[in-house]
Amino acid sequence: MEKTLEALFHRTLKDIYYAEREVLKGLQKMSRNASSPDLETAFSAHREETAGQIERLQKIFELLGKRAQGKTCDAMEGLLAEGDEVIENFKDQPALDAGLVATAQAIEHYEIARYGTLKAWADELGMTDASELLGQTLKEEIAADALLSTLAGRRINHAAIAAE
Amino acid sequence: MEKTLEALFHRTLKDIYYAEREVLKGLQKMSRNASSPDLETAFSAHREETAGQIERLQKIFELLGKRAQGKTCDAMEGLLAEGDEVIENFKDQPALDAGLVATAQAIEHYEIARYGTLKAWADELGMTDASELLGQTLKEEIAADALLSTLAGRRINHAAIAAE
Repeated sequence: MEKTLEALFHRTLKDIYYAEREVLKGLQKMSRNASSPDLETAFSAHREETAGQIERLQKIFELLGKRAQGKTCDAMEGLLAEGDEVIENFKDQPALDAGLVATAQAIEHYEIARYGTLKAWADELGMTDASELLGQTLKEEIAADALLSTLAGRRINHAAIAAE
Repeated sequence: MEKTLEALFHRTLKDIYYAEREVLKGLQKMSRNASSPDLETAFSAHREETAGQIERLQKIFELLGKRAQGKTCDAMEGLLAEGDEVIENFKDQPALDAGLVATAQAIEHYEIARYGTLKAWADELGMTDASELLGQTLKEEIAADALLSTLAGRRINHAAIAAE
């Protein structure tokens, strides 16, 4: 059973379900530690969005007739550990926000890769409703990444420099 | 010293330098294990590209006046461990290539995030030559990801289904 595209889909769904629930905690911490109010707001807003994305994943588990269940995602653990390290090493420093944005964009890109893959597989498997839900989340992740690029370009990298 | 944007740039350069050298080994293994000749070729070609990207990173260390040195990247370790797991669990199975493409695209997206960030920081720091080198690699990573999407869409996901 663990050998078909459906098995791969289920396995990857568990990976991103685990990852998103970790991100929910990570974004809270990153939001609390951001210096710029704009960045704090962006992290908080994306945290709420993440909660909605987790609900969508639960719906997809339902569509599969499976229990919503996570599978440890070492890549996301690594990314969130990097966020902790940035907070620890750059606390009260001008480059803190630039570091937090970098970690957050790596997180977004992990999610973009996963949702892109899962959506393609859902299409292949004829899972129309799942594909629709995954597409909604994918759009949100792409928009979140773009917003972080804008914030970084506009203010945060300048601030990191100006204070040097 | 560890607190400025330049320090963050150097730190992230070490992260991706470590990651790319691990990817060099990972792509060899993924290429050897891919079922589809197209995918094997794509992995091999991107492995050669990766060797060139590592040389660019070495040039950027030189531009910084620093020794080329890696810093363990847990996220990439996690992604490559996933690749090993896919090879182990899906060996000789129709969904093997679909799983390898998924891992490879997550790797590409990690790199896209890192090079995008490093390029923005190089621009901010007035490091024109470094920005140029990072921009070249960023384009290659985006193209590699797009090629994998095309391969997956065209053949690999179908093959995984057809054999179910």
